[in-house]
Amino acid sequence: MKLASISYRGSDSIAVAVDDDHLVNVKEAMVACFGADIETPADMTALLAQGDNGLARVEKAIKFIHENPSKATLIPQSEVAWHPPVRKPGKICGIAMNNSASNERKISAPDHPAFFLKPASCLIGHKETIAIRKYYGSVHPEPELAVIIGKTMRDVSAAEASGYIAGYSVMNDITGNGMRAEDLFQYWAIYANEDNPDETRRVEQHLSYAGRYKGSDTFGVLGPWLVTRDEVRDPDDLAVQCHVGGEIIAEDNTRYYNYKVAELLSFINQFHTLHPGDVVSCGTAFKPSANRKSIHHANFQHVAGPVSVTIEGLGTQENPIVIEDKEIGAWRLG
Amino acid sequence: MKLASISYRGSDSIAVAVDDDHLVNVKEAMVACFGADIETPADMTALLAQGDNGLARVEKAIKFIHENPSKATLIPQSEVAWHPPVRKPGKICGIAMNNSASNERKISAPDHPAFFLKPASCLIGHKETIAIRKYYGSVHPEPELAVIIGKTMRDVSAAEASGYIAGYSVMNDITGNGMRAEDLFQYWAIYANEDNPDETRRVEQHLSYAGRYKGSDTFGVLGPWLVTRDEVRDPDDLAVQCHVGGEIIAEDNTRYYNYKVAELLSFINQFHTLHPGDVVSCGTAFKPSANRKSIHHANFQHVAGPVSVTIEGLGTQENPIVIEDKEIGAWRLG
Repeated sequence: MKLASISYRGSDSIAVAVDDDHLVNVKEAMVACFGADIETPADMTALLAQGDNGLARVEKAIKFIHENPSKATLIPQSEVAWHPPVRKPGKICGIAMNNSASNERKISAPDHPAFFLKPASCLIGHKETIAIRKYYGSVHPEPELAVIIGKTMRDVSAAEASGYIAGYSVMNDITGNGMRAEDLFQYWAIYANEDNPDETRRVEQHLSYAGRYKGSDTFGVLGPWLVTRDEVRDPDDLAVQCHVGGEIIAEDNTRYYNYKVAELLSFINQFHTLHPGDVVSCGTAFKPSANRKSIHHANFQHVAGPVSVTIEGLGTQENPIVIEDKEIGAWRLG
Repeated sequence: MKLASISYRGSDSIAVAVDDDHLVNVKEAMVACFGADIETPADMTALLAQGDNGLARVEKAIKFIHENPSKATLIPQSEVAWHPPVRKPGKICGIAMNNSASNERKISAPDHPAFFLKPASCLIGHKETIAIRKYYGSVHPEPELAVIIGKTMRDVSAAEASGYIAGYSVMNDITGNGMRAEDLFQYWAIYANEDNPDETRRVEQHLSYAGRYKGSDTFGVLGPWLVTRDEVRDPDDLAVQCHVGGEIIAEDNTRYYNYKVAELLSFINQFHTLHPGDVVSCGTAFKPSANRKSIHHANFQHVAGPVSVTIEGLGTQENPIVIEDKEIGAWRLG
């Protein structure tokens, strides 16, 4: 199923794509199939919290509508406003430098996945506007496969991880690489000595902080929908394209990720519990396109939108970009 | 008011401290004061979403109970389980290196606040157990002032920011400095040239990722409660202490923050919209104590708990530490 969070004629709902042009409201389908007493999920997070049973009920209801098309309203996809399929994920983990195309640029790197967090507040849906302010500096798109968790997971091995996935979506992990270059520290970190913890030593360390450059408002496009796990044969072999202003700037495949989807989930959940609705964005698919343009050319401050990301089997998201000619406000006192 | 999220006799509620030893259930107080038809907030996030009016109603109800003590049950603080006052903040922004005591250790640093995110899934409350695994490596406490947002804010200046604060709490921003040293990249970043965006250049960059070292389960202690803004005369002048195993390891004051509370909120909200219930943790108050011990000596792998953090006017949180003798699971496939 392709499960979307939409707004249609002023009301929010979850809906399922029933053909290339139409959706059906999940609540309407469930009531038609199971009767007016059926409990219906308030939103995608509530649906995912019901686990496989919840998704099976929706699937049955949609099958009923396919067999009884008069029982539900066909909603034209062209007339809805798209929210991110999960509107307020508990967390969004973004994997850093997970593409083998970036390996030759690494001077030193950990031998395991590394990740940052994006806030739910940065998310927008398909067709919503990406708003970039002049003072953000250079900002570029990063097309990524997003995994949406279906069951609470902790200490699950890679071999078992795929059973915890609700489905997949497309993420544009928009990145302020101008701010990234600013939010760097070189400093003397203090560590306790191993042999005598009462003594400390100073270690030169470079740290950087992703709060601004990965989390500013509209820096995460998720959607158009969540495609359930059963419809994706192999998440580790999906073609990815990204276009900006009609020009292709990335042609890649998730098979070039250094770490596979199941490995990423398993690694993260040895540290963090993953909950239903949490999102893991698997890293940028940025191999330059045949025209040799790459995401690094696509500074939104200079290159006009829209930006689109397509992943095989998961659909296309497309978003306009506006540049707000705005100065940063008075954030210092006195 | 001191507003807590608690569990008492098996049910979750929000409660207000009415004396040094007791709490009163907010719902019970509101029904006693306003009658059974009054709508009561389901949790702290719902209460904060009601803005100043919601807090004023709770305050009125608690005043009524003070005047009519027989109308509500006194809940002994010693008998409750403490949740984080806001159980699932939409986001938690943690400010990096905001203490003037760290300035001499900076070789280079930005001239504005930098921040990372902690996930809501890492939060625990007062008295809950901090669970550290052997494979996490060195882990230490970071005592911090936490600000809890009361109203949606975007583009609010520093001069206006304090009006958007619901209140304050104590945060122990537990940090895996062992993992911090591992999740570092030195690599050749690619930037478009300013004069010809069709050409790119390579720039050596050090990046680091805070997902693991700031966000692992139980790495954020928030509480015991939210103290409303009206009870805190000056958030930029509060004494902070941290003890581990009974020994003091930090004696500091929020007056030594490089950036004031209002400046931090104003800076962040020129990039991120802040929503009710969001938390901004203002940076570590880590000036070494008179005994010259510091947070850097307090590696939880070697130093026994409990760990406590006290902030003037905001109370004390104290948490036991357990070390789990556990190996990392099989996160690689095949």
